[in-house]
Amino acid sequence: MVLLGSTGSIGVNTLIIAKRYNIAIETLVAGNNIDLLNEQIAEHHPKTVVIANEADRAKVNHTDVRAGSKAILEAIEESKSETVVNALVGYVGLAPTLKATSLGKKVALANKESLVVAGEFIDMSLITPIDSEHFGLWYLMNDRPFSKLYITASGGAFREWEIAKMKNANFADALKHPNWSMGDKITIDSATMTNKLFELLEAKWLFDTTDIDALIEKKSMVHALAEFKDGSTTAHFAGVDMKLPIAFALRGEVTEPILPPTDLLTMGSIEFLPIEERRYPIWQIKEHILGNPHLGVVVNAANEEAIEAFKREQCSFFGMSEMVLDAYKKFENFKADTIDEIIAIDKEVRAYVKK
Amino acid sequence: MVLLGSTGSIGVNTLIIAKRYNIAIETLVAGNNIDLLNEQIAEHHPKTVVIANEADRAKVNHTDVRAGSKAILEAIEESKSETVVNALVGYVGLAPTLKATSLGKKVALANKESLVVAGEFIDMSLITPIDSEHFGLWYLMNDRPFSKLYITASGGAFREWEIAKMKNANFADALKHPNWSMGDKITIDSATMTNKLFELLEAKWLFDTTDIDALIEKKSMVHALAEFKDGSTTAHFAGVDMKLPIAFALRGEVTEPILPPTDLLTMGSIEFLPIEERRYPIWQIKEHILGNPHLGVVVNAANEEAIEAFKREQCSFFGMSEMVLDAYKKFENFKADTIDEIIAIDKEVRAYVKK
Repeated sequence: MVLLGSTGSIGVNTLIIAKRYNIAIETLVAGNNIDLLNEQIAEHHPKTVVIANEADRAKVNHTDVRAGSKAILEAIEESKSETVVNALVGYVGLAPTLKATSLGKKVALANKESLVVAGEFIDMSLITPIDSEHFGLWYLMNDRPFSKLYITASGGAFREWEIAKMKNANFADALKHPNWSMGDKITIDSATMTNKLFELLEAKWLFDTTDIDALIEKKSMVHALAEFKDGSTTAHFAGVDMKLPIAFALRGEVTEPILPPTDLLTMGSIEFLPIEERRYPIWQIKEHILGNPHLGVVVNAANEEAIEAFKREQCSFFGMSEMVLDAYKKFENFKADTIDEIIAIDKEVRAYVKK
Repeated sequence: MVLLGSTGSIGVNTLIIAKRYNIAIETLVAGNNIDLLNEQIAEHHPKTVVIANEADRAKVNHTDVRAGSKAILEAIEESKSETVVNALVGYVGLAPTLKATSLGKKVALANKESLVVAGEFIDMSLITPIDSEHFGLWYLMNDRPFSKLYITASGGAFREWEIAKMKNANFADALKHPNWSMGDKITIDSATMTNKLFELLEAKWLFDTTDIDALIEKKSMVHALAEFKDGSTTAHFAGVDMKLPIAFALRGEVTEPILPPTDLLTMGSIEFLPIEERRYPIWQIKEHILGNPHLGVVVNAANEEAIEAFKREQCSFFGMSEMVLDAYKKFENFKADTIDEIIAIDKEVRAYVKK
């Protein structure tokens, strides 16, 4: 396989599953963690390695090292692998997804921005999502007719904060996720609920439905629920460990233990709570964007710039949502007919938000 | 179809579903509620009616009325229907199940004693269970390899009582089920947890597994959980309304609304609690009887007699469990090779318990 983003949490878990099932690694793509990359090279013997920065090339223990985002696309083009695991973070993950699917390769997709930004230009039959929520939905659906799908949210760093106090929260505060440790961007997106909005958009493309919503479940024991037409509701419980969706994405179906089962007796009580717009202002556009999912590119571009601004203390925590909502209103009549128009509007939104 | 037990809660709901799907009623079998039976005759026009007591015959508005348990078997024998719905209560339900399956008829089975007493003599391919727990398990399984199945228990009338106080509880106290209104016998079986022990035995026969346990879930929102080998756990939520399992039992699969979906936001918190042997002494034999399910006949016979004794104030609430556990120990080496031996041991256990 080709693994994009090998040194992040998804990448590391993907290599554990690949080793377990003797899946050969043709290409490793990593960013700045060259020490870990070198360990992965020693263990998995990829044919090709791609890194982010030319300057790091000499540190990498491999004979075929390339650098930069163009090199990622070339490595996918050259690869003989049928499967590309895309665990890149953010908009940069889109071009590799488009390249891989245009070559007919299957994409195990952890890069949610690919679908959020350009879902209507991606052949969904080639995509298998790597995340607990969409995996959970798929696990529950079993071809039964559903009336509604739900994914759960932890509620993020500020779920227990007074709203007045949230106005003064800084970047470091927003990184204190109550349930687990993830990368910076997704942790901020969790605090603003933008992460869950993106997952609803992904579900729209993956399962071809707008009958989808999210609920807060603070223990992160339940990841997905499906409400069926007959009146039954089913829920998916699992430990928060990406090895489970990764194993299914790489193997199709798995019949041996990947995780220990949830201990129903020690988990205590669980409950489902609504997502309130005053705590999570981005939720105001949820219904509209599900009906207009092509606007995902606008929200994503504005959101990435807003996070940068928040990180640089150029805006407050709620300032991020204001910037995104303002851009959404400004560009709400936009509709791309081609990928090039997507790329152009992405730039235009970023320029607008920066100004 | 042939409907045994038409005037009980399952029978009434079965007729609602039958009407919805235009399923003709060939035979109605009822007990003492002749007024309701006459209403059902007027609405569903059965060809044959069977009642419990000869003395009631004149009150029934039908030309072909028969009485007694032998008449039930004859009516099944004469019927052209492919399906028998058995909603009789207790040991009396066994003979009709055996008769129907021996004729190759499908049995939609609410009479749990049939499987508890004689599971190994019944062709399971002809049985579809009518109850929330086994329906829920079936709904969740989807041919995936499971590691453990769970059904839930409400905990019954005394789940919040101090154990010292339970010693003095009477029949009327035990009938005060916290969640819903059912017949007397099943409500007492719920208070002692014998009902759940029987459902575990049913699951053993239906799904050919002893990897099955029960948990208390006081709100009765979740009826079943399945733990799969990969590490996923799924749960089945539904309103407590027998129309859902009845519709699936009669139709195989249902793709239209039978019940309104569970409201996840108003249900509040749910939790799973262990079943404690000091509150539910019958639970002491759970592991042993799952390994020796042919002993179900002993527990059932002793339990039916114990309930009668408790009703007549001849024993205390915990006295019932003592009688059942004593009989279980006395007969634990019994193993029937034929149905006739089952019938004989049933009599012997009842005589032993009465003495």
